[in-house]
Amino acid sequence: MDPAWACQLEIFGATPVQLLLPLCQVRPNMHRMRAGILAVGTELLGTDRLDTNSLLLTGALQRFGVEVVRKSVVRDIEVDIAAALIRMIAELDLVLVTGGLGPTSDDLTREATSRALNLPLVQNAELLADLQARFEKWGQIMPPSNVSQAAVISGAEVLANRRGTAPGMRLEDDGCTLFLFPGVPSELEGLIGSSLEPWLESRAGQLQIETRVLRIACVSESALEDKLAPAYAEFDRHNISVLSSPGDIQVHLSATGDPEERQELLDAMAQRIGVLVGDALYATGQKASLEGRVAELLMASGTTVSTAESCTAGLMAERLTRIAGSSDYFVGGVVVYSNRLKERLLGVSPSSLERYGAVSREVVLEMAAGAVEQLGSDLGIAISGVAGPGGGTQEKPVGTIHVAITGNESEAIHRELHLPGGRRRVRWLASQWALDLLRRRLQSVGVR
Amino acid sequence: MDPAWACQLEIFGATPVQLLLPLCQVRPNMHRMRAGILAVGTELLGTDRLDTNSLLLTGALQRFGVEVVRKSVVRDIEVDIAAALIRMIAELDLVLVTGGLGPTSDDLTREATSRALNLPLVQNAELLADLQARFEKWGQIMPPSNVSQAAVISGAEVLANRRGTAPGMRLEDDGCTLFLFPGVPSELEGLIGSSLEPWLESRAGQLQIETRVLRIACVSESALEDKLAPAYAEFDRHNISVLSSPGDIQVHLSATGDPEERQELLDAMAQRIGVLVGDALYATGQKASLEGRVAELLMASGTTVSTAESCTAGLMAERLTRIAGSSDYFVGGVVVYSNRLKERLLGVSPSSLERYGAVSREVVLEMAAGAVEQLGSDLGIAISGVAGPGGGTQEKPVGTIHVAITGNESEAIHRELHLPGGRRRVRWLASQWALDLLRRRLQSVGVR
Repeated sequence: MDPAWACQLEIFGATPVQLLLPLCQVRPNMHRMRAGILAVGTELLGTDRLDTNSLLLTGALQRFGVEVVRKSVVRDIEVDIAAALIRMIAELDLVLVTGGLGPTSDDLTREATSRALNLPLVQNAELLADLQARFEKWGQIMPPSNVSQAAVISGAEVLANRRGTAPGMRLEDDGCTLFLFPGVPSELEGLIGSSLEPWLESRAGQLQIETRVLRIACVSESALEDKLAPAYAEFDRHNISVLSSPGDIQVHLSATGDPEERQELLDAMAQRIGVLVGDALYATGQKASLEGRVAELLMASGTTVSTAESCTAGLMAERLTRIAGSSDYFVGGVVVYSNRLKERLLGVSPSSLERYGAVSREVVLEMAAGAVEQLGSDLGIAISGVAGPGGGTQEKPVGTIHVAITGNESEAIHRELHLPGGRRRVRWLASQWALDLLRRRLQSVGVR
Repeated sequence: MDPAWACQLEIFGATPVQLLLPLCQVRPNMHRMRAGILAVGTELLGTDRLDTNSLLLTGALQRFGVEVVRKSVVRDIEVDIAAALIRMIAELDLVLVTGGLGPTSDDLTREATSRALNLPLVQNAELLADLQARFEKWGQIMPPSNVSQAAVISGAEVLANRRGTAPGMRLEDDGCTLFLFPGVPSELEGLIGSSLEPWLESRAGQLQIETRVLRIACVSESALEDKLAPAYAEFDRHNISVLSSPGDIQVHLSATGDPEERQELLDAMAQRIGVLVGDALYATGQKASLEGRVAELLMASGTTVSTAESCTAGLMAERLTRIAGSSDYFVGGVVVYSNRLKERLLGVSPSSLERYGAVSREVVLEMAAGAVEQLGSDLGIAISGVAGPGGGTQEKPVGTIHVAITGNESEAIHRELHLPGGRRRVRWLASQWALDLLRRRLQSVGVR
């Protein structure tokens, strides 16, 4: 017996056979494709960087109903890459590799794949001409190292990379499909759209999954779970998942079936959840933001705002102006840490400050009114509170926040909040609640 | 032959033998330990979460000169975990596993390890009593599912977890050391300190690596590379690495040898680089921040500041107040988007606005002076510019920023900047430059 096999047997010698079965199941007749993702790059094994490319790939795979069963990261070392590839190809239906396709000497994915599959690398004249043309267009002479990027594994389909010099490749080996992608995220993203998704669509067909993301602000995860319970009962629990971050929750809905069925199911789930959560739902879509929704409502209604901040110290103003064109609705703001400035810039009365303290309903209402008057806006938003870690008292512990919104032509709103977390979290949540209060107010007066 | 082996042979049949060598090298006589990290958890194979625990582990391993050669993520499925373990144990000196030690039915790392190593799980009476005592202390009855957490792999050393209910384990198998850790980051962090690092120290001895991080603001990466060239030539290039983020660069220094040698080398490198980069170096340490350094300088000198912002819209004030106790030095700020407010709140002269425009040296100097006067601080910092995407002109394109600092008792400083990137990046960089200008000014007047 080949000594390599003897060694292999020795290593696995004490292992019950059934454990090795997953290594040996060469794709039984299954309906759901099983995929593995291999990231190549020594830099991904340090303390500073993670393989985030796999998230992009997983998103595409999930949309087409393909399950990711394993991810690995290996060094820029040819035998390491090849060994990992051999294992994944033997066990999985689909293997996606990122990185190691650049022109430098430590870009070894092409060579390793060639060895793993026992297929030669061949120069592709068309690719080489294309590469040279690119460099000419940039007014440069192509460095000799880039020649390696025109090498293609025999039998591979070349996947054009419009955003960079490293083309991708698709190969079939023993019933497993292998994709090689560049590691630069923007290039990978381009190739997912131009190569991976069309391939998945042709393979996955009916299994395609469509998703919709509902955005919900200022509800606790447990309160939301309670509200969603009827939807969980009514629809498949697996089609609704909740992703929580401070003050902002995403509800991911997914649906399979033909395009019409999917759309119907998503509409039905979204509508039901809309009823269950009420106006806590502020937008639809992964890329939506509370700032964006507020900007939309302000612009649509032609309303202007100004801010008067204490503990959030400019964060509210900064968030209101993240959206391009914010000067249409944002007039200005003041950050008033001291009582002296609250009086001087906003006209807060010394007697209120003395009687109720700076963190109080009365003072925050006067701050908001002062913003309207002094800065000249339709609405004024004021925030005052104890962000911590110091400054808390028994009566007003760290996390106590008062928010007010007032305007010339409408009644003032006030909320007292008790927010959890450290200084940064409390400040963030305070701005989140204030933004959401503004959103609800704008929505309630009929702006859609 | 066992059919499993026949299958295995068939899979690897076409593979050149040398490729399998890494699978078979059962730790030749090497000086540097090679480690693998295995994260267990189906949730780590979705689109929302990454295995960040491996960064904590890698940091500890690197400090002791152990190289991480592979990372993998597998599902909460017993055969998947066991197969990955078998491979890693066969090929590496050290295997670190995180996750799957909880009390629920999908926590299977204990069972999988028991199968992979062919060692039974045994109930540990001491652990069980300890678990029960914990729940009693919390005033609860221990749920039956937690009994599984008292099961220990025969021969394993139990690693006490003071921050949670899942203890870690350390095992030796065929010359490979295996650590099982809980997946909760705070619990893992505790066990790294209490178990992994002492073990590494006892093993790695002399190979221990010490690191130091130098922090540099507002220098481009290429300009820094030029400045560092003499240090690269003088010291081992591998001991100096540069990690860049917008407006803020970390230079990581590392040194091996005995504690005294390491310290000497780090001191020598840090000193040399300090001379090369001059006052662009603002702090030492991974956890340092520009905000923190500015706060330190302001507090040490008893100087108060106020802000007058246009395009950054509160970001400068928000950053100045991230540090607890900022009310000692931060008086307040204004965000003045419109010319009207620049005049009204800061006393900027209408003729300057008309003649030079809001984004100009003259106006930003008047804004800073207005902040000092109107808000009553020692220093005033003003920022005005074009953050984009709209508002740019041929003369003042997007990214044009003016920054000024002025005070009652000193000369004013002004900088005109041309910053790259989109709206958010430009705003961030503008605040970064303004903070750094303030830091340099405070340092130059002798505050240390």
